[in-house]
Formats: sequence, structure tokens, C-alpha cells
Amino acid sequence: MADYRKMWEDLGMDVENHDLLCSVLPGAIGDVFLSQENRPEAMDYFDMVLADVHGLRPAELVEFKKNGGKVFGTFCTYVPDEIIFAGNGIATGLCAGSQFWVPGGERYLPANTCPLIKAMLGARFDRTCPFYRLADIYIGENTCDGKKKAYEILGTDVQMHIMDLPQMKRPKDIEKWADECHDLLEMVEKETGNKITPEKLAENIKKINAKRAALKRLYDLRKNKNVPISGTDTLLISQIAYYDDPERFTTMVNKLCDELEKRVADGVSVFPAGTKRIMISGTPMAIPNWKMHNLIETSGAAVVCEETCTGTRYFENFVDESGENLDEMVSNIADRYMKINCACFTPNSGRFDDIIRLAKEYDVDAVIDVNLKFCQTYDIEGYLLEDKLKEAGIPVLGIETDYTDSDAQQLKTRIEAFIEVLG
Amino acid sequence: MADYRKMWEDLGMDVENHDLLCSVLPGAIGDVFLSQENRPEAMDYFDMVLADVHGLRPAELVEFKKNGGKVFGTFCTYVPDEIIFAGNGIATGLCAGSQFWVPGGERYLPANTCPLIKAMLGARFDRTCPFYRLADIYIGENTCDGKKKAYEILGTDVQMHIMDLPQMKRPKDIEKWADECHDLLEMVEKETGNKITPEKLAENIKKINAKRAALKRLYDLRKNKNVPISGTDTLLISQIAYYDDPERFTTMVNKLCDELEKRVADGVSVFPAGTKRIMISGTPMAIPNWKMHNLIETSGAAVVCEETCTGTRYFENFVDESGENLDEMVSNIADRYMKINCACFTPNSGRFDDIIRLAKEYDVDAVIDVNLKFCQTYDIEGYLLEDKLKEAGIPVLGIETDYTDSDAQQLKTRIEAFIEVLG
Ligand code: SF4
Ligand code: SF4
Ligand code: SF4
Ligand code: SF4
Repeated sequence: MADYRKMWEDLGMDVENHDLLCSVLPGAIGDVFLSQENRPEAMDYFDMVLADVHGLRPAELVEFKKNGGKVFGTFCTYVPDEIIFAGNGIATGLCAGSQFWVPGGERYLPANTCPLIKAMLGARFDRTCPFYRLADIYIGENTCDGKKKAYEILGTDVQMHIMDLPQMKRPKDIEKWADECHDLLEMVEKETGNKITPEKLAENIKKINAKRAALKRLYDLRKNKNVPISGTDTLLISQIAYYDDPERFTTMVNKLCDELEKRVADGVSVFPAGTKRIMISGTPMAIPNWKMHNLIETSGAAVVCEETCTGTRYFENFVDESGENLDEMVSNIADRYMKINCACFTPNSGRFDDIIRLAKEYDVDAVIDVNLKFCQTYDIEGYLLEDKLKEAGIPVLGIETDYTDSDAQQLKTRIEAFIEVLG
Repeated sequence: MADYRKMWEDLGMDVENHDLLCSVLPGAIGDVFLSQENRPEAMDYFDMVLADVHGLRPAELVEFKKNGGKVFGTFCTYVPDEIIFAGNGIATGLCAGSQFWVPGGERYLPANTCPLIKAMLGARFDRTCPFYRLADIYIGENTCDGKKKAYEILGTDVQMHIMDLPQMKRPKDIEKWADECHDLLEMVEKETGNKITPEKLAENIKKINAKRAALKRLYDLRKNKNVPISGTDTLLISQIAYYDDPERFTTMVNKLCDELEKRVADGVSVFPAGTKRIMISGTPMAIPNWKMHNLIETSGAAVVCEETCTGTRYFENFVDESGENLDEMVSNIADRYMKINCACFTPNSGRFDDIIRLAKEYDVDAVIDVNLKFCQTYDIEGYLLEDKLKEAGIPVLGIETDYTDSDAQQLKTRIEAFIEVLG
């Protein structure tokens, strides 16, 4: 860690306060990850990235910026990385999953705001996250009310580019999103000084599709009766997807999948036979939020799928690669992203279809629908979702939680009771 | 009241439960309105409308429907009444301001949802509001997350037409809103079976502008040193504006203004000289939510302006009447509505400008910024708003409240202390 102190100071971070955050990480890694049995060897890479989460990748970004590169911070699966990388920019997720940042956010936001949003503002204003320091421009998107309005407060401290997401999915809304993607492209060109040519964009559409394909391969392996990797490990990989160099990440996920394929062929699982298969649906779980996976998988069940933005919503659907000019490519990008079924849309019945389809594909015994406290869109949508799942005969447990540990024991009791009833 | 029982039964209402609601109204009217001193005589009309709120106007709507008329229910100042009336439809507000409906809404919605939205669902599903029964089609609008998602639940029980409000105000967003207004026009034509001609639309643009002009006249009168009408009475008028026949309402407001003009000429005020002048800003106050006005005006201050959707946001800005064809008219309508500065937009700095401008125009001593509990957009915007008001040297008190009375005493103490400090 000591090696990075100078870098953090140069980034204008509050290094003393940041030390507190760093000091709890090794213990958390030990408890949540290293304690698992029979982990795939290829998790080494992801463990390393995690152990040095505020060092390794930030150091790469510092180098990149020294050579004039621009870093773009994002907060949502809806922001098309393809366009940013096509301008020789780097996109990095700024989703904030730690309770450490929440009190800082509460200085600016009502306490009854989703912890993800509070942590966003805390991470920025407390200056305890190198990624928040490194991003030159933050790309906000009008998804939920909380983020939309919090971006205005972030905007007092950092350059923001806002994309106006439509709230419906009629053909004209998809066109509107394509237009927002065009605006993003122009902004990236202006800020990086690089022209985004059709060749560059086509190349990066392929690059990000390859990343999606690797994640799809990983997820498909979890459909097997013998689950070759834990949900907790898979969640970590999904979280790292938002930060890491896309090509290296793709290589590493594929390497892991090679190992997992061998496991499947050999009938090796990380769970005992008969372990109940759970799908998590709901709000995103930003790094280092492993709370629900940890609770479920230490309660004797396996998480085999996440219908979340740190799960299937991130990689399902590919951008059509047949676009022949920038307009066609941007339109194909918009089409793909508008297939993500986020509760910010109305109606969002596609999400119900997704969850029922995934429940079958992953052969799950039940769904645990997890909402971050004060996330109105997913919470209200949960009312109709539970109806649909009941209709489909899929058991469902709805859970509302935040980043604190105060409810952990109570949640564990509820989860254990739920799993037991699945019998 | 007995006269309307049959009508309520025919409307499929839960009449027994509804009796409970009716039974508290006379007391509330006495406490809040009739106890005020020196009220204008022309308040008689509005008192009568209020006393029979679930009878008089609903009976008119029943008659209208018997002759094949269609009633459109609305929830937001953004829905252009002009278009509905131009199709010989009737628009009626369905905003719900009573705690009576909140528990019913909580059967469908998370407790941490704004009371306005919970009351909406309670009023519908409990069948205790004739307006909710009478409206053939509800017009939703994607403004805040809570309403957007609650409309999906309403949609399981009643026909909904959703307008997708953009969340920004760039020229292309205003065009998008014009397109949504076109869709509304087509829907109204289809549902009513009436063609909306340019003549009809022009006529109704004038009609609704006349209503705005009457309200502006009323509000302008409050700018005088001798305030000729209480804020509580004015709030009632603003609330009735959403329900009443527009032409009759305009006539009655103008009649009241004639009386108030005489008061101003005679130096008559409803408040003693030196009474502190307060502007309320924030979330809408749907009928029968008079809580804040009542608390402030029984604490020795005068409410002279409301920067709310039951206030200036409802009537400021007129639709340009020079449109020569339907397209131009719809575009003028869209332009006018997009001038409303609702916290659902980002950025919404126009609202800060409005409040500072209104504070000067109405010569206020302070602003009380009132947010309905769990309204995220206005609550988060309040952070920047307080900064701007401090910069402008305008004292501000931020209050969060709901429809219950449990915090009334505590709020009164805070308000009295605030007013005293204004010294
Ligand atoms: S849940 Fe919705 S708003 Fe959140 S990251 Fe996913 S797509 Fe974006
Ligand atoms: S979890 Fe919900 S409230 Fe939180 S950022 Fe995502 S959509 Fe917004
Ligand atoms: S506050 Fe906004 S959402 Fe509410 S009625 Fe007014 S314009 Fe509509
Ligand atoms: S007060 Fe706020 S949360 Fe409630 S309906 Fe209006 S905008 Fe939505």
C-alpha cells in the first residue's frame, strides 16, 4: 500500500481518512472471498485487482493521463463505453458500494436517499476515492430522481455531461437515446481532441461485445447442475468489469471460463449436491457491496444468477456489428442499450419477462428481490413483480437493505427460513 | 349531503367509508376558513364549492357523462387542459391531499413514498373519491419516480394515458414535449370521438389563458402592502382551479378580484400592519391540504405567495395565442408548459430565479420551503436552493412534512421562532 501514498496525495486525496478505508479491506477480503472453499485458481487475478483496488488501476489511469488521456466517470449501465473508448478515452465506473462514503453524502443529501447515491457524493466530496479524483468528466444520466438531482450537486465540484434517458421505450424514445449517444460522441471528441472514425467505433463495438461474450460465457457456466463458481466470486468479477481495462478483463474472464469448463466436464462444483439455486434480482451492487451474496451463500444456498446491473443487465444483448457508418453504429448502440430493462422505465414489463426467462434458464429454486433502501423505482416495481412471479409459480423473497451491517443477522434469519421452506 | 348518496352508490363508491371522510369536512372548514377574520364576501362561492366538494361538481360530471361526455383525470400541472377541453372533454385534477387516503395507498406502495402518491392510490382503490370514479381515462406524466411507477399500479384498474416528460429543457426536449402533446390530442380525439379543429383549440387556449389571467390578477393583488386576502383562502382557490368548470371559475375569481381591488383602494387588509410576509415554495398542496398555510397564518405571519403547482407555477406564463394552425398551437402550448420550473427537471435553475424574482415582486420577508416527505426531487433541490437564497440575502426555513397532524405543534414552534427572528 505504501507505494501508492504519494500518488494518492498527488491526486488531492484525504490520505489519512482513506487509510481507514484501506485498513478494513484485507479483513473483508479474507472473510468474504478467501474463506470460500475450492475457489477457481483463475480468481487470483480478480483477487489481486481487488486487493489493490485503489492502487493498480488508478496508477494505470495516472500514466494514461500523463500522456494526455482523458478519463470519463460513469454511474450507470446505460452509458455506452464503446463511444468513450472509440475516442481513445477511458471509461471507469464510479458506482459507490461502501458505507464508508455514506455519512459524507448525507451532508448534501436527505438521509432517505439510496445509499448508492449518498456514497457517490461522499466519495467525491470526502476525496477518499482515487477514481473520483482521476475522472476528468463525469457522465450522468437521468435515470432515477435521486441520481438526476444529485448530479446537480456534483456539478458544483466537477465537470458533468448529462444524458437525458427517455422514460419509455417507444420507437421515438429509442431515437431520442440515439441522439443522446450522438451528443456523447461529440462531447468525447471535443474533450479528447480525437476524431471518432467509423473504424475506431466499429473496433470498440467489437471490443465491448467481446467483453459481454466473456461474461455471458461465465454466466452460462453457472447454468450447469454442478455450479463451478460461487455467486460471490461472480459478483466480484461483474463489479471489476466496470473498472478494468476491457481487453485484459475479457482475457482474464475467458481464462477463468476455460478452467470452469474443465470443472463442469469433471463434475466439480463449489456447492454440495442439492444446494438450492437462487437468483438475485433488483438494484445494482457496487463494489465492495457483497452483503447479500455473502449472506445467502453462507446460509447454505447458491446464487447462480443476478438480474441486476452488476449481472445480466450488464452483458445481455450485443450491439449489432453490421453498422457501416457512424450513424448506423450509434443507432445500433442505442438499440442495444435500450434493451436493458431498468425500473426507471415505464412500463418495464420486459424486466418481468427477463426474470421469468432467467429463472428457467438458470433453473433456480427461488428469486430473492433485493432493493437498496429508498430506491423508489425498484421498490414500487417490486409490487407488480411479486405478482408476476407468484403467477409463474416462482417463490420470491423481497428484501430491502442498505450498506450497513446492522440488519445482517436479521436478514440471515429470514434468508435461512426462506431457503428451508423451499425444501 | 344525503342528496348525493345515491350518486355515490351509482359511482360504485364505498359509501360507508366515504361518510367518515365527509364527516370531518365541516369541522375542518370551520377551523381553517370560517375562523378567519374579515374574509372577502366573494369567498362564498369557493366555500360552497368546498363544502360540497364531492357533490356539486361530481353531479355536473355525471350529467356530462350521461350525454356521452368523457372525463380525463390529471395529476400534474404539466398536462395541458386546453387540448382536453378542445375535444369537448372535461379535465379534472385527481391530486389527493388527504391523510384519509394514505393508508389505502400503503397497501400498494412503500411507506417511504410521498403522501400525494400514496393518497392517489388510496383514493382509487378504496373507492372513496367520486372524481376518481368519474374520470374515464387517467393522464399520467413521467415526472417523479414515485408517480411514474405508481401509474403502473393504477393501470391495473383504470385506463391510463402516459405522457413522457423530458427531464431537461434543451430545444429538442421542448420539441419532444410538443410531440407528446400531439399524442395527447390524438388520444382525446379518439376517446371523445370529436375532431379538434384549429378553431376549437384556439378558443380553448383563450379560455385557459383567461383563467390564468384571473389568477394572476388575484395574485397581483397580494403584492400590495395591505394584503386583501389570506394565503389560506388563496390556496383554496388554487386548489379549486384544478376541478372547477374553467369559465365559471374565471368569472368567480374576477368577481373576487373586483372586491379585493376595492379593499386595496380603501386600504383594507386581512392582516394587521407590519405582519411578516412569507412566500411558500416547494411541492404542491392538493385539496384538502391546508396545513402549512394554517400553521403560518395562525402564527402571526401572512402567506402572500406560493411558488408551487397550487400557486404561481399553475398560472404564470400564457400560451401564445398567435398560432394559426394546429401544429403551431400545439407547439405554443408545449413552449408555455415547458416554462414551468418543476424539480423533476435538471438543471432547474430557472426555479431559483423564479423564487428570487417572486420574493422581490411580493416583497416577502422570508421563504418557507415546504417539502412533502419523501419527495426526492424537491428535497434534493432544496440543498442548492437554500444556498441561492442565502446568497440573495433572503431568509429561508426548510420544512419537511406529510399529511398527518402529528408534527403540527412542533412545526408551529419552529415557524413562530423563525418569524420572531425576522424581527
Ligand atoms: S439500475 Fe438502472 S439506473 Fe441503475 S445502473 Fe442499472 S440501468 Fe442504470
Ligand atoms: S439503486 Fe435505485 S435509487 Fe439507487 S441509484 Fe439505482 S435506480 Fe437510483
Ligand atoms: S410539482 Fe412537478 S410533478 Fe408535481 S404537479 Fe407540479 S409540475 Fe407536476
Ligand atoms: S410532491 Fe414530489 S414525490 Fe410527490 S408527486 Fe410531487 S414531485 Fe412526486
